[in-house]
Amino acid sequence: MKICIIGLGLLGGSFSLGLKEKIKETHIIGVDINPLHVEKALELGIINESASFEEGIRKASLTVLATPVDVISQQIGKVLDILPETSVLTDLGSTKEQICKIADQHPKRQQYVALHPIAGTENSGPEAAFADLLKDKIMIICDKEKSSPQALMIIELLSNILEMKIRYMPSDEHDRHLAYVSHLSHISSFALGATVLDKEQDEQSIFDMAGSGFSSTVRLAKSSPQMWSPIFVQNKQNISVALGSYIQKLQYFKEIIDNEDIEATKALMVHANDIRRVLSGMEKRK
Amino acid sequence: MKICIIGLGLLGGSFSLGLKEKIKETHIIGVDINPLHVEKALELGIINESASFEEGIRKASLTVLATPVDVISQQIGKVLDILPETSVLTDLGSTKEQICKIADQHPKRQQYVALHPIAGTENSGPEAAFADLLKDKIMIICDKEKSSPQALMIIELLSNILEMKIRYMPSDEHDRHLAYVSHLSHISSFALGATVLDKEQDEQSIFDMAGSGFSSTVRLAKSSPQMWSPIFVQNKQNISVALGSYIQKLQYFKEIIDNEDIEATKALMVHANDIRRVLSGMEKRK
Repeated sequence: MKICIIGLGLLGGSFSLGLKEKIKETHIIGVDINPLHVEKALELGIINESASFEEGIRKASLTVLATPVDVISQQIGKVLDILPETSVLTDLGSTKEQICKIADQHPKRQQYVALHPIAGTENSGPEAAFADLLKDKIMIICDKEKSSPQALMIIELLSNILEMKIRYMPSDEHDRHLAYVSHLSHISSFALGATVLDKEQDEQSIFDMAGSGFSSTVRLAKSSPQMWSPIFVQNKQNISVALGSYIQKLQYFKEIIDNEDIEATKALMVHANDIRRVLSGMEKRK
Repeated sequence: MKICIIGLGLLGGSFSLGLKEKIKETHIIGVDINPLHVEKALELGIINESASFEEGIRKASLTVLATPVDVISQQIGKVLDILPETSVLTDLGSTKEQICKIADQHPKRQQYVALHPIAGTENSGPEAAFADLLKDKIMIICDKEKSSPQALMIIELLSNILEMKIRYMPSDEHDRHLAYVSHLSHISSFALGATVLDKEQDEQSIFDMAGSGFSSTVRLAKSSPQMWSPIFVQNKQNISVALGSYIQKLQYFKEIIDNEDIEATKALMVHANDIRRVLSGMEKRK
């Protein structure tokens, strides 16, 4: 089984390592514009060989686009042009609507399956990859009716082998939901990190007092700007609504604190406490 | 050694369990207005006996106020009135300026040491308490020059026995810093939880897609409203400034996303990435 992975970062690398752990004979052809990533991926056993973009796609029965979403948008048409008629294409991008719209225009649309594995860490690059990243996580398949039954089945089987839980969803609904449950978390964390770092310029040793609560809320601020910037831009309409609601909520919170309105602050927090139900549901899913 | 703990929640309970683990003969007298907390604390071995407010203070050589900060503000004068001349008083509140100002008015100010252990979880009540909560954490002592050398030494020794790292700081500086590295994190998390829960009313199954990044940023939204509401109000001036900066940062972030300004979004995130330095510094501190 020859698989071409374009983009040898955290996600592409972990996809490869996860598969190799389950199916020893998996042969991975790696493509990356960064020669250091290719070298590292060879060294770490993430890929068996490296190839050029065209060569990799032609040799493989499955090509996986694991680049940032703006690059996926640029590449998907070209990949489909080159893709052998018996091969399958998928991508692992965190936005789906725009990428699917581009793919929809291509005569080989049926050979493509739109994916989004809900998995990641705040680290990036091939060194950050590990075999268990995808295990027990959600794999979202978008607009499945537009993929051929065989292409879909291959992706479903691979997801099962990786021990992932599959969910199906229209690509526009995917992007609307992800704005709330992922993109907004990243924005809140990046903004929080930046705000406190700005303050540090006036106040030395401010971080001496930071505890686990602080770490937890700013952890995502370590994430890759190269990866996240295009996600925010591609999903800007949904993010604008979600972020607008978040800012309004914070303005209201500020107002009730400024007014010392103890009851209103308690009511807001009691409402937010309902997140326990959500988080315990997520725990159970594991 | 008889210690009276007023407020048998996560922090008061963990303080007791941590000490009992190190010094077996520690005798803890528990005071709580909630009879269920008292019962549970007895059952869990957090306290050796329960007592009334007055009785507990009179019997102990150290009294620890571990109630919410508004209750500490109300109680501290009364506790100092009752406190035997050979006893010491401390509190574990997350705000220090207002509490210290009240204590400063009291003729027995020297018997009081203002504390803030930077430790907690999103859980509350005596059941949430555990012996290791305070271990390796920062213990902030505020306005130490206002405490008698003996009272200070007792608190320093106790902090050492609990394996905590002591920092000294003026109470106003404490509150200004904590607004950024703790209170703001909690507000961002409560507001994020509330925003996404509001959205859930229109969109079923939104949380099916939430991953570890979401959990990490909303974890603090599980925290106790009874504890946090008075903290926000007591530190409202510093929080208003910090929260104002955070809202501004988010508004700017929204603007550059709306404008598809890839370079500006990257620049903001590259700046926020510097939080790696802070978080790795915190890791090393352990």
